[in-house]
Amino acid sequence: MDHGSRGDREENDIEVEGGGHNGSFESERRKFVERMGSGTSEDHNLREPLLLKCRTNTTSQIAIVGANICPIESLDYEIVENELFKQDWRARRKVEIFQYVVFKWTLALLIGVLTGLAAVFCNFFVENIAGFKLLLINNLMLNDRHFMGFVANTSINLGLAILAAILCAYIAPAAAGSGIPEVKAYLNGIDAHSILAPSTLFVKIFGSIFGVAAGFVVGKEGPMVHTGACIANLLGQGGSKKYHLTWRWLRYFKNDRDRRDLITCGAAAGVAGAFRAPVGGVLFALEEAASWWRSALLWRTFFTTAVVAVVLRGFIEFCRSGRCGLFGQGGLIMFDVNSAKNSYSSADLLAVIFLGVIGGIFGSFYNYLVDKVLRTYSIINERGPIFKVLLVAAVSLLTSCCSYGLPWLSHCIPCPSYLEADRCPTVGRSGNYKNFQCPAGHYNDLASLFLNTNDDAIRNLFSSGTSKEFHLSTLLVFFVAIYCLGIITYGIAVPSGLFIPVILAGASYGRLVGNLLGALSDLDTGLFALLGAASFLGGTMRMTVSLCVILLELTNNLLMLPLVMLVLLISKTVADSFNQGVYDQIVKLKGLPYLEAHAEPYMKNLVASDVVSGPLITFSGVEKVGNIMHALRLTRHNGFPVIDEPPLTPAPELCGLVLRSHLLVLLKGKKFTKQKTMTGSDIMRRFKAHDFAKAGSGKGVKLEDLDIKEEEMEMFVDLHPITNTSPYTVVETMSLAKAAVLFRQLALRHLCVVPKTPGRPPIVGILTRHDFMPEHVLGLYPHIVNRHK
Amino acid sequence: MDHGSRGDREENDIEVEGGGHNGSFESERRKFVERMGSGTSEDHNLREPLLLKCRTNTTSQIAIVGANICPIESLDYEIVENELFKQDWRARRKVEIFQYVVFKWTLALLIGVLTGLAAVFCNFFVENIAGFKLLLINNLMLNDRHFMGFVANTSINLGLAILAAILCAYIAPAAAGSGIPEVKAYLNGIDAHSILAPSTLFVKIFGSIFGVAAGFVVGKEGPMVHTGACIANLLGQGGSKKYHLTWRWLRYFKNDRDRRDLITCGAAAGVAGAFRAPVGGVLFALEEAASWWRSALLWRTFFTTAVVAVVLRGFIEFCRSGRCGLFGQGGLIMFDVNSAKNSYSSADLLAVIFLGVIGGIFGSFYNYLVDKVLRTYSIINERGPIFKVLLVAAVSLLTSCCSYGLPWLSHCIPCPSYLEADRCPTVGRSGNYKNFQCPAGHYNDLASLFLNTNDDAIRNLFSSGTSKEFHLSTLLVFFVAIYCLGIITYGIAVPSGLFIPVILAGASYGRLVGNLLGALSDLDTGLFALLGAASFLGGTMRMTVSLCVILLELTNNLLMLPLVMLVLLISKTVADSFNQGVYDQIVKLKGLPYLEAHAEPYMKNLVASDVVSGPLITFSGVEKVGNIMHALRLTRHNGFPVIDEPPLTPAPELCGLVLRSHLLVLLKGKKFTKQKTMTGSDIMRRFKAHDFAKAGSGKGVKLEDLDIKEEEMEMFVDLHPITNTSPYTVVETMSLAKAAVLFRQLALRHLCVVPKTPGRPPIVGILTRHDFMPEHVLGLYPHIVNRHK
Repeated sequence: MDHGSRGDREENDIEVEGGGHNGSFESERRKFVERMGSGTSEDHNLREPLLLKCRTNTTSQIAIVGANICPIESLDYEIVENELFKQDWRARRKVEIFQYVVFKWTLALLIGVLTGLAAVFCNFFVENIAGFKLLLINNLMLNDRHFMGFVANTSINLGLAILAAILCAYIAPAAAGSGIPEVKAYLNGIDAHSILAPSTLFVKIFGSIFGVAAGFVVGKEGPMVHTGACIANLLGQGGSKKYHLTWRWLRYFKNDRDRRDLITCGAAAGVAGAFRAPVGGVLFALEEAASWWRSALLWRTFFTTAVVAVVLRGFIEFCRSGRCGLFGQGGLIMFDVNSAKNSYSSADLLAVIFLGVIGGIFGSFYNYLVDKVLRTYSIINERGPIFKVLLVAAVSLLTSCCSYGLPWLSHCIPCPSYLEADRCPTVGRSGNYKNFQCPAGHYNDLASLFLNTNDDAIRNLFSSGTSKEFHLSTLLVFFVAIYCLGIITYGIAVPSGLFIPVILAGASYGRLVGNLLGALSDLDTGLFALLGAASFLGGTMRMTVSLCVILLELTNNLLMLPLVMLVLLISKTVADSFNQGVYDQIVKLKGLPYLEAHAEPYMKNLVASDVVSGPLITFSGVEKVGNIMHALRLTRHNGFPVIDEPPLTPAPELCGLVLRSHLLVLLKGKKFTKQKTMTGSDIMRRFKAHDFAKAGSGKGVKLEDLDIKEEEMEMFVDLHPITNTSPYTVVETMSLAKAAVLFRQLALRHLCVVPKTPGRPPIVGILTRHDFMPEHVLGLYPHIVNRHK
Repeated sequence: MDHGSRGDREENDIEVEGGGHNGSFESERRKFVERMGSGTSEDHNLREPLLLKCRTNTTSQIAIVGANICPIESLDYEIVENELFKQDWRARRKVEIFQYVVFKWTLALLIGVLTGLAAVFCNFFVENIAGFKLLLINNLMLNDRHFMGFVANTSINLGLAILAAILCAYIAPAAAGSGIPEVKAYLNGIDAHSILAPSTLFVKIFGSIFGVAAGFVVGKEGPMVHTGACIANLLGQGGSKKYHLTWRWLRYFKNDRDRRDLITCGAAAGVAGAFRAPVGGVLFALEEAASWWRSALLWRTFFTTAVVAVVLRGFIEFCRSGRCGLFGQGGLIMFDVNSAKNSYSSADLLAVIFLGVIGGIFGSFYNYLVDKVLRTYSIINERGPIFKVLLVAAVSLLTSCCSYGLPWLSHCIPCPSYLEADRCPTVGRSGNYKNFQCPAGHYNDLASLFLNTNDDAIRNLFSSGTSKEFHLSTLLVFFVAIYCLGIITYGIAVPSGLFIPVILAGASYGRLVGNLLGALSDLDTGLFALLGAASFLGGTMRMTVSLCVILLELTNNLLMLPLVMLVLLISKTVADSFNQGVYDQIVKLKGLPYLEAHAEPYMKNLVASDVVSGPLITFSGVEKVGNIMHALRLTRHNGFPVIDEPPLTPAPELCGLVLRSHLLVLLKGKKFTKQKTMTGSDIMRRFKAHDFAKAGSGKGVKLEDLDIKEEEMEMFVDLHPITNTSPYTVVETMSLAKAAVLFRQLALRHLCVVPKTPGRPPIVGILTRHDFMPEHVLGLYPHIVNRHK
């Protein structure tokens, strides 16, 4: 109890010197200790986070794969206005502002180029690895070595899968899963551990390559978004300090606001790279990823995605001459859906509406099942990395068995007469029309879907004028298998996108419906497949405009726009009546404190002071070092109110808010005085504003780094220069709903609650993100939801 | 001085009864009168608006055509939380919430259908009127009756132009111009007089038809956006009360927030209808029109534009069989730019960059000239409606002379051999390849551009594989003429869109460059025309993503996306270094108090209390009727702080804010008491929340409607039930920059400034939109911009 006793002594000292206010510090601390219900191990209990809660309630904090429970930090988007920053801003020359703009655009350019190259890299390896694997199997099958084919397929898949799983389980668990929920949460202000770390980037790229090549029903699109965000984060942090890769000019971007902008660009670039959809990427960032949007950002993300498009185009031009191995026959090339027929009748419209309704139901059911499976997997994954690898191996074996075993159910179909002889059955290259067990001149339609890359399978399903190529039973088997495999694959320790499984399942469903309704509707079955995919995407992801544009850019056909819009609207509406979108669901499942755009209705019945929790620890304008050190050790608060007191002011008044990170830097500078005097100007000379710039996650000054001597503990430090003198405040009687709107709209981290009546301490409490979480509010007031009938 | 003396008496009464606080009311009023520098005509001076300023400084308030200077009202987007609304919200049943959702979507559907029909209507009449006009001239020319052709062209144009001008000058001056700046300002919270009135809608549609058919270099796209917004406003107001067309369920939408949403949908629908670009419409609303955006709105606008697309498609299908007269050969049909070549070399890229840079310069110069011309025209237009009509007639004559006279400069070109004989030269229908003065088998390329509808001219310029069709000199003449005509046409009293003139000028410029660079670049001249149009649009309007998508949807070719993006980015960057976008410029020119998204940098040096202006008029929680009436007469404030005082509370404290409109409704209800007692529950029983719902502009209770008797003036009324008890507040020492961010982000109308130190009145002042205007701040602190070097 060394800390505890020292703490007590210091506080007593304060009480002697500082007067009444610091007494309340101690008494409030006591109250808090009592409230925590334990007097035995004070220090341990007091470490329990309050404002920054590393929440541990097990119902909302399920450790599913890829999520590290702790520490979850809030990002800080507020413009700090303290003396130091104001001085810095006044001193900033025009040259510096110009530099800032140039660097901003340079960074956007770099993000575009690097994300484009990452997309190229990923596609190149996936196409080549998967291509050679399929080539091998095809050759074995052509020589009737069926069992060898099975063994080769299974063992190669298993090997790649285990490789991906080992990377993911041992190096960067955060790289598992889609990554879009994590990016979404980051842009909402949640800095979960190592979500955007370089190791995550590395594993995301290679894990995704191995995972997709291993034949899993996963996409590389979601991971590409995460990759883009990681690249943006890495660039924003200025490389690694360890390897002396920091750039001086990056100091302008050492704050959460600019980082958020960069990562938004990264996410947009990721989608642009994954789908070759630059406009779709911008819209994705706007509609799904970003929580706060500025008009200026639109232009910057647009620039980034344009760069990505140019990089991809250059690469494809380069590969056209066959210099990229097996690449060029799939991957980034768009799906060309050129339906000759542009008009449609009302019967077609009815069919499309039917498609949308059923697609919405299937989509929301998909979400429901993914949720259930994730909860189950999290129990397995929690046991340790080796269990993660075993789970991946099991799913890989199942997938291999399905993809090799199910095609035996299908009958052989004679090759269509309009195809050249070398295209059907496929010989010597990874193409469509797999011969499988069939005699020459025939192909196995189910093998054409299963024993192909996912991209090729989608292309087959989308192809127009091929209504006879796939049997009804084939489509049914494929749909059921992919629907189930997609659900059980998401959640294993492999980077796994959701777009491709959903598109695959949706396209086979759409083609199935198209074949069934063939007599009633004139629409092409390929178009039906596209609309089916749209309905599934709308039903699971609940995006509208961005999905619409991505699909249009993917298929390069604008004339079916109204139909795609209609299907998306219907399926989203239907699915919304059942459950949330899949990404929101995963964010919630991971227990990330996501701030919704709207306040909950029951918040109208509460006021701000109703949800203020925990004892308030405040500092004087000129505070004793020991006192600060004690408070920093005692709590994990990230913001402390600073209160000016007599004799400085006639009555105690709120001076502002200091941040923990700024306090640490200030204490490290050791500008202390023996007397309680204002030494602001000294500090202003000693420090520059960018000394207080936010370091990359885990890189700032830590409490343990401070080496404050015993005699320094008794000295004073002037907090005024680093106090944010313009914190946003609400009166304690402010409706909680309106306080929540303020907090969310302005993207705050701390919101000061001030008293309504005079004669009380000038601050009542501080609201943080966690105080607005429904779980917190409903925990305090369980019956509030029912108070209005 | 009747008012003034009565006012004095009343205030004295208050002083006797109400005690200290009301004394300060009087003394503050005195101070104010003194500050206004005039003691002679108190009443008149006090009528000078303070919070709601109907600003009259002539530098920023130029009355250009279409702008009514006064009254400019702020819209109110804040969620009012008073007792009545809370009670209403608690009482609201699930059925009502469901109804609200259903009605919301029904309104979106109706907006889509009606805007689609308006677009159809407009296009149908334009194509037919202009078509028959051109047919007549063509026939006259074929018969060598050249002078008659000139007379017919000039007189028909003049007739139509005067018709449009009379509608516009006498019925709805607000209908002149593009309408996009007005919609943009409305969505920023500025309710200028009759901007969205039914009369404006009527004139906008018919004026636009006549104006475009009259051969002006104007588009119908901007007016279509305004039309969409007007339709949305009309639907939101529930038709006309006069004709008993109100619907009961529309009461849910009688507030500025829901109206803003509807009008955003309307603007999106307008673009969708004008360009047949549903996704582009959504993006236009997001990027250019809306100042506040919610994710939910994305989906709703998307639905609306999808409906518009379906309506337009149905109409085009209907017209395909020739049932629409001359429609179907132009107008809504897209420009098909099918460039066979999809790849491009680095030389092409250089050419495109060159195109973008020059386009940006031309675009910003266009803005500069439009600004100058508008300022000149405003002097003419201010003199009265007849001068407006005369100006229109003059411009019409000039346009007719150009369109008929300039083609004589061009030589005859033999018809291209690949065209069928009935297509070149054009016979008997309004098509391309005008014969004009040429012999049979030849056509006049300049006449093909000038003596055509604007849509057809654009289609000609965009057409691919036609690099020989237009001479270099033709393109040069056409470019110069259209550039100048476009500039002098905008600002006359005719609904005139800017899209078409800019696209026309840009396309001819692009084609010109394409012809010049023909040897260096492999790109098609039609593609060059498209890129030229993009560069001009980027240079004038400064949109990026929305323009890109609109152009893609217009030309139905996704493969040129990277080039279009590149050109837009370059031209916007270049143009931004010269001046503002054209719409922002017009908003500023009209003196509309537009709130920018970002605070000005110099605001960091000020605090909130620095810009608070005017005397503060506050009410007691239970206030005397006469006092309220006096304050309402005295000022045009829209919000008054309510202060609870002893004995109700131990010390004076801020209860909240009442709105003028709510006060008027309350006073009309006449729930007064003889004694100063709280009668909240009585009032709550007497009124329902929707009694206080905002009426349509100009429809609410007016001060003159109140008939308060002399004895009632002495009675009291309890303001608590209608007081918004959760107004947003800032401390007086809050940085003005951060207060501005708060004001803008939360879309406030009033922001209360509270004192920092206790012992003072509980409110220091109220900030409104005008207090954040650069003119106001710089008027108070002229040297602040230079204070930081």
